[in-house]
Amino acid sequence: MSDATLTDLYEVTMALSYLHEGMTEPATFSCFVRALPPERGFLIAAGAETVLDFLSGFAVGHDDVEVFAEALQRPARELAPLVGMRFTGEVRAVPEGRVVLAGEPLLEITAPLPQAQLVESYVLNHLTHQTTIASKCVRCVLAARGRSVVDFSLRRTQGTAAACQVARLGAMTGFSGTSNVAAAHAEDLTAVGTMAHSYIEAFGDEEAAFTAFALRHPGPVTFLVDTYATESGVAAAARVLNALGRGDGSAIRLDSGDLAELAFRARTILDNAGLPQVRIVASGGLDEFAVHDLTRAGAPIDVFAVGTRVGVSADAPTLDSAYKLVAYDGRPLMKLSAAKATAPGRKQVFRRPGCHDVIGLAEEPVPPGSTPLLETLMRGGVRSTPRGRLEDARRRVAADLAELPAAARYIRSPQAVRAKVSKRLAHLTEQVRRRIEREALAPFGSHA
Amino acid sequence: MSDATLTDLYEVTMALSYLHEGMTEPATFSCFVRALPPERGFLIAAGAETVLDFLSGFAVGHDDVEVFAEALQRPARELAPLVGMRFTGEVRAVPEGRVVLAGEPLLEITAPLPQAQLVESYVLNHLTHQTTIASKCVRCVLAARGRSVVDFSLRRTQGTAAACQVARLGAMTGFSGTSNVAAAHAEDLTAVGTMAHSYIEAFGDEEAAFTAFALRHPGPVTFLVDTYATESGVAAAARVLNALGRGDGSAIRLDSGDLAELAFRARTILDNAGLPQVRIVASGGLDEFAVHDLTRAGAPIDVFAVGTRVGVSADAPTLDSAYKLVAYDGRPLMKLSAAKATAPGRKQVFRRPGCHDVIGLAEEPVPPGSTPLLETLMRGGVRSTPRGRLEDARRRVAADLAELPAAARYIRSPQAVRAKVSKRLAHLTEQVRRRIEREALAPFGSHA
Repeated sequence: MSDATLTDLYEVTMALSYLHEGMTEPATFSCFVRALPPERGFLIAAGAETVLDFLSGFAVGHDDVEVFAEALQRPARELAPLVGMRFTGEVRAVPEGRVVLAGEPLLEITAPLPQAQLVESYVLNHLTHQTTIASKCVRCVLAARGRSVVDFSLRRTQGTAAACQVARLGAMTGFSGTSNVAAAHAEDLTAVGTMAHSYIEAFGDEEAAFTAFALRHPGPVTFLVDTYATESGVAAAARVLNALGRGDGSAIRLDSGDLAELAFRARTILDNAGLPQVRIVASGGLDEFAVHDLTRAGAPIDVFAVGTRVGVSADAPTLDSAYKLVAYDGRPLMKLSAAKATAPGRKQVFRRPGCHDVIGLAEEPVPPGSTPLLETLMRGGVRSTPRGRLEDARRRVAADLAELPAAARYIRSPQAVRAKVSKRLAHLTEQVRRRIEREALAPFGSHA
Repeated sequence: MSDATLTDLYEVTMALSYLHEGMTEPATFSCFVRALPPERGFLIAAGAETVLDFLSGFAVGHDDVEVFAEALQRPARELAPLVGMRFTGEVRAVPEGRVVLAGEPLLEITAPLPQAQLVESYVLNHLTHQTTIASKCVRCVLAARGRSVVDFSLRRTQGTAAACQVARLGAMTGFSGTSNVAAAHAEDLTAVGTMAHSYIEAFGDEEAAFTAFALRHPGPVTFLVDTYATESGVAAAARVLNALGRGDGSAIRLDSGDLAELAFRARTILDNAGLPQVRIVASGGLDEFAVHDLTRAGAPIDVFAVGTRVGVSADAPTLDSAYKLVAYDGRPLMKLSAAKATAPGRKQVFRRPGCHDVIGLAEEPVPPGSTPLLETLMRGGVRSTPRGRLEDARRRVAADLAELPAAARYIRSPQAVRAKVSKRLAHLTEQVRRRIEREALAPFGSHA
């Protein structure tokens, strides 16, 4: 059974119905985030590469159809039209790492209606999750103001697959390393980490533990100093580093207590021991808010290790995302439900420097001085560009952050940048709304 | 490369160091949740089965060691002692589906120290995630007061693997179905769902869409009625159900607006159309708080479809869990860090009816009238009991819920049940604290 079964049952019933009705003309679905969470001034687009991998390999096999039939409690032969379905459509998307705003399409799929429907759940899941996490991670980098941020989230994300995405998206947004070994290998990231409290406890004595560790592990080491009492732990670390001549590149890690206060004291102890080059790593419940407070307090912390709260995006663990039908068979469509109305038609985002964005229609000419955000990444079910590289996405993050208004980058109470809507899109929206209200009783589509 | 690489780098450095030092005596690590989130009165234990699967198959291969070596930037030959490591230890755990409280061990691993260390990240991740989600899902079932709850979370969980766990854990805690086809197949669950707004929009007309759907899909159908205007949508659904004689077992779904108000109106329309048997499904941003408000308002909703907010446990997307070394080589250990102190020794939880729990030591006799919560599920790295079945876990949830004080089951401001500590554990904790403070400079362990 393939990933095609990672779908909501209603995608299957709808796809089947469309096939039976002969409704297989191209449909465009647009995936976007309706509104930003309170503490977000912008989003970082992510997930398109996972979606393209999924769509490239999408193929409904006999075993998948048996799973669908079991779910529907119907004979597999009634689902025969689904066998062998592949994705043959077009994907236009914002490349990973770019800043996006509320209402802007992250990705648009144009494909025969049953295909575009059946892939919805998977596409929406991964775009939402990865954009959520990238948008959280980038705020830690902003809060760190040039100091290093590393990912320690593996132990408490929502499953280990999610953790590997956090490591990747952290790197995309500017983290300098991850503790996650599998993700470091998969994405060619710097792996970081040395010891836990249990290591000290197993030895019973900090100096013995630090010494044993340093003797067995050549190169820079990071000693965890707060197992018993932080200041004596720092002093013990300093003695071992000096005794073994291992100060260069090494660090101590603070994992509890008043991190700002302890960092100042640790810095003094290390400097007085002739170890000004030894860095201070802080961890323990950190997120962008805590990092912000620590950097504003001038705490002499060189590396922020963020974990759980960032790995699950604790203050906003999901986004108000949607995957909406905006056109079928050349005809623009929209939903009218109160508070959930969507704008019709295939779209494009036109960006002028400074993140002045206009959401328009894909067929509109690009306004002078603007660049279009969505790029065609797949045609006929085949990637039309090489697989996106992490370092390119990372460059996009850095370039787009530099263009953002300062208030959008605030850690507390950021001001969300808002996109405008083009005249043509506004006009079409009004036209379609009126048409739907007028024609709601006159069916169309190939069955009519 | 195997799942053994789903580990934090420091587990590898510590395991290597322990092997080099000959510190391979049995260590016990205890996994527990320090404190409950504000809106939780209890937890539902989950994740032990995933952990047992992982430990059963745990084997460090040559390719894993190459990944470790790459992460450490050291030659693979220096990591040779790790090659071929399997998990040969004991696992004692609270069976899935049981109520657990803050401070109570969910799972304890006793194994040679390097093994018990290397598996930490994976074990802690899955126990934390699954216990988080099970503890959220069960609150939806409580809030629904006997009406059905189904899982619609696939589209916005933190990855699709997480979604499959939500489906499983929902079923464990009393949900009656899931929209997730892959999970329904894997766990033998009832799959649910019929149509999205886009289906109606593709037809352009509700009556045409409902008719086409019902003609192509035999059996009960659920019509989504709020694409344009809810009351006319309900009326259209009623006309189609009556025209085709398909009322029995069928339903309508409300997905936006004032769900209580709309449910009352829909009920009237359906009843007046002679369709009292047609059920009402509600969805759209529901969690246990919204379900609670709807049931208290007496809204005639038969099925609550919960999605995103439950699937990510939005108000508490993680738990304050820990995996702590509590004994090494027969000697009880603890951590002293302020606010993070842990109790030493291998533990057991003794429960009297009514969830009166006492956390004690594993070797204590079971007090009369109490039953022990932790069971030995693995010995010598091999499962010592059959794989846990979902229906057994589901029975445990139901039985344990019936024992909980009412205030722990409140949806808003529940009162967390608190476990007591046995005299012997309290005494040992004090002894170990004094010993560590006294001996902190006298190393022990096989290197001493």
